[in-house]
Amino acid sequence: MSIESASRCGPGEIAGHSFDEFREMIRQFHGSEAPGLLIGGFMVALALCNVEEGKFYDAICETRSCLPDAVQLLTPCTTGNGWLKIVPFGKFALTLYDKTDEPHKGVRVYLDAGKLKDWPEIYAWFFKLKPKAEQDRAKLTEEIRQAGTSILTVTRVSVKDEFAKKAHKGKTGVCPQCGEAYPLKDGETCLACQGNMVYV
Amino acid sequence: MSIESASRCGPGEIAGHSFDEFREMIRQFHGSEAPGLLIGGFMVALALCNVEEGKFYDAICETRSCLPDAVQLLTPCTTGNGWLKIVPFGKFALTLYDKTDEPHKGVRVYLDAGKLKDWPEIYAWFFKLKPKAEQDRAKLTEEIRQAGTSILTVTRVSVKDEFAKKAHKGKTGVCPQCGEAYPLKDGETCLACQGNMVYV
Repeated sequence: MSIESASRCGPGEIAGHSFDEFREMIRQFHGSEAPGLLIGGFMVALALCNVEEGKFYDAICETRSCLPDAVQLLTPCTTGNGWLKIVPFGKFALTLYDKTDEPHKGVRVYLDAGKLKDWPEIYAWFFKLKPKAEQDRAKLTEEIRQAGTSILTVTRVSVKDEFAKKAHKGKTGVCPQCGEAYPLKDGETCLACQGNMVYV
Repeated sequence: MSIESASRCGPGEIAGHSFDEFREMIRQFHGSEAPGLLIGGFMVALALCNVEEGKFYDAICETRSCLPDAVQLLTPCTTGNGWLKIVPFGKFALTLYDKTDEPHKGVRVYLDAGKLKDWPEIYAWFFKLKPKAEQDRAKLTEEIRQAGTSILTVTRVSVKDEFAKKAHKGKTGVCPQCGEAYPLKDGETCLACQGNMVYV
């Protein structure tokens, strides 16, 4: 079910911040004014406008790129506190959902390719039609500012129980091979010693 | 190869912040003074003291818990900018490494269970020997402050090339099933439509 953006979303506002304030926030945290993160700000803002106030929500990002930082900047959900989960589908979509009550009702927001016809720079960026050096970054940023939430679609979803909850690691032991602590549920040795080597 | 903590690490200092300043930073970002994040601060600080100044480093966390937030607070590496990668081994270890030059030399820091004998509250927390309600949180925090980097071990590592680099998503298309954009390399439809359903 597609729903309208709630009227309490101020136009051009990003979860209580002006567009330019949010630009500064992402420069500080993310290191650059990534277009995906600017749009991500509007996505989080739109999701926040469509959930109940005063309730706690967890977050899912369906891509690793940019969006997780919008969630981390604008909500209490972070990678390290487990309230933000990443489902690496490479889809530019995020969901805020109720972790405690079943069904885990939530709001999913995605950048809707069907709504980009008036925004050529956003379209070219989203579908990677121009090499980075040829992008008109100022025009792209201005289109993002003007488009705001109008290029997004928001739907109501229910998150499956197995995705909704925090996984518990269980008991910790010492790996007999490397001597480091690891979750005993992983087996006789830690996952690294089982051959999943990150290091040469 | 195990290396000594560099002398330019000020005792009790966390990457230029006092312990209490860092506590406030994690309350703001992470939502609570998680012990793993307090220790994570010392881990990042120790890693930073052992890499070359002025060079750019990417980060790997070997657990999803807490550590990613220490990296995000104290380095330019975030989940969304791709400079922080998570390898979910459930191991309390992190690495800063040189993404550009091969071999990708780096510094790995882990909480060393063999160095915890003087720190009973940290030991009990790390091996989950006490239910959360029975933990003496003030004593645990004080032990973490006093222990500082003394409970950590730092080694020099080289990160495998396939882990070191950023994965590129390639071309973007529109999924014929859901109508949303997705990386074409994933197949005829997006990964969600291939049956990896997050939603009911």
